[in-house]
Amino acid sequence: MTGTRERIVTAGAELLRRNGYTGTGVKQIVEAAKAPFGSLYHFFPGGKEQLGEEVIRTSGMMYLALFDIFFADEPDLLHGIEACFASAAETLRATDYADACPIATVALEVASTNEKLRIATADVFTAWIDAGTEKLRKYGLEPEAARRLTIALVNSLEGAFVLSRSLRNTEALDVAGISTVALARTLLP
Amino acid sequence: MTGTRERIVTAGAELLRRNGYTGTGVKQIVEAAKAPFGSLYHFFPGGKEQLGEEVIRTSGMMYLALFDIFFADEPDLLHGIEACFASAAETLRATDYADACPIATVALEVASTNEKLRIATADVFTAWIDAGTEKLRKYGLEPEAARRLTIALVNSLEGAFVLSRSLRNTEALDVAGISTVALARTLLP
Repeated sequence: MTGTRERIVTAGAELLRRNGYTGTGVKQIVEAAKAPFGSLYHFFPGGKEQLGEEVIRTSGMMYLALFDIFFADEPDLLHGIEACFASAAETLRATDYADACPIATVALEVASTNEKLRIATADVFTAWIDAGTEKLRKYGLEPEAARRLTIALVNSLEGAFVLSRSLRNTEALDVAGISTVALARTLLP
Repeated sequence: MTGTRERIVTAGAELLRRNGYTGTGVKQIVEAAKAPFGSLYHFFPGGKEQLGEEVIRTSGMMYLALFDIFFADEPDLLHGIEACFASAAETLRATDYADACPIATVALEVASTNEKLRIATADVFTAWIDAGTEKLRKYGLEPEAARRLTIALVNSLEGAFVLSRSLRNTEALDVAGISTVALARTLLP
């Protein structure tokens, strides 16, 4: 039954990303996962909320891995930032503006309505900020500057996803890339 | 019955902002508006979707008016930007991190699921970008620079709202203010 649990989390992640937490029903999730209905409560006795928490944490950690892709072997910080936003823009266009941040929709939905899930999103954002700060320090940034640039990068990316998905064009992501690079220039030693 | 319609829109705006579109029921809205249930369909024959569209457009236009507050009589662009983010941070803290952008949650929810409401959010963002661009031009910015700065400001604000509401602190908003000011410095003549 190992595969079933994984399929439920994967299907849940896809549905939550596209439809949000309240917009997704558990029935929809098991159907998309081609899993028997009872298996959801077998693996997630806490039901939708427990699955939601696991989806937030799992998707969040997978997204965090992207930091490595863009910055691990990149000697130039500004190129790394540009590549990051260019790739996000390409993914958005390729998926008809559906695949953006895996947890932002849910994060906004639960921020004032579900404390358990709010904390899961906060843990994910904290992990991103900590990992990004460490990653960006290798470009010679002071800890506080690296943290500030990481937060600015996440701010711009998340905000641009809202605009780009709504407007169905990537202008906001292009501007986000340009403005994050501009900030990076002021912070580099 | 004029007051009833207004109360429904106001209650709808408040509920959609906090709980999202799918997380809000029409019953909840009429109850919060202290309106008879039938009045919702009397004023909004298209039901929840029609009300949602009006709420998005009305809230969006009210939020747009904030641009005037921060930039109308402000001789210094950088002070205007700082005041904008400082005020957003203060509002978030004062409302226990509930009152941020009136349409972002809904915008993400409907981006891939409801084309009519997606267009309403796109019209709002377009109005913000156009109005902001015009407003910022008076600081001597070229049209393209004014547009870029406006989009960067909205990106940073929207993204910082996601992080700040999730993390329950205003660090992301503080960084958003600093990075938008940094970009503005590079664009000013």
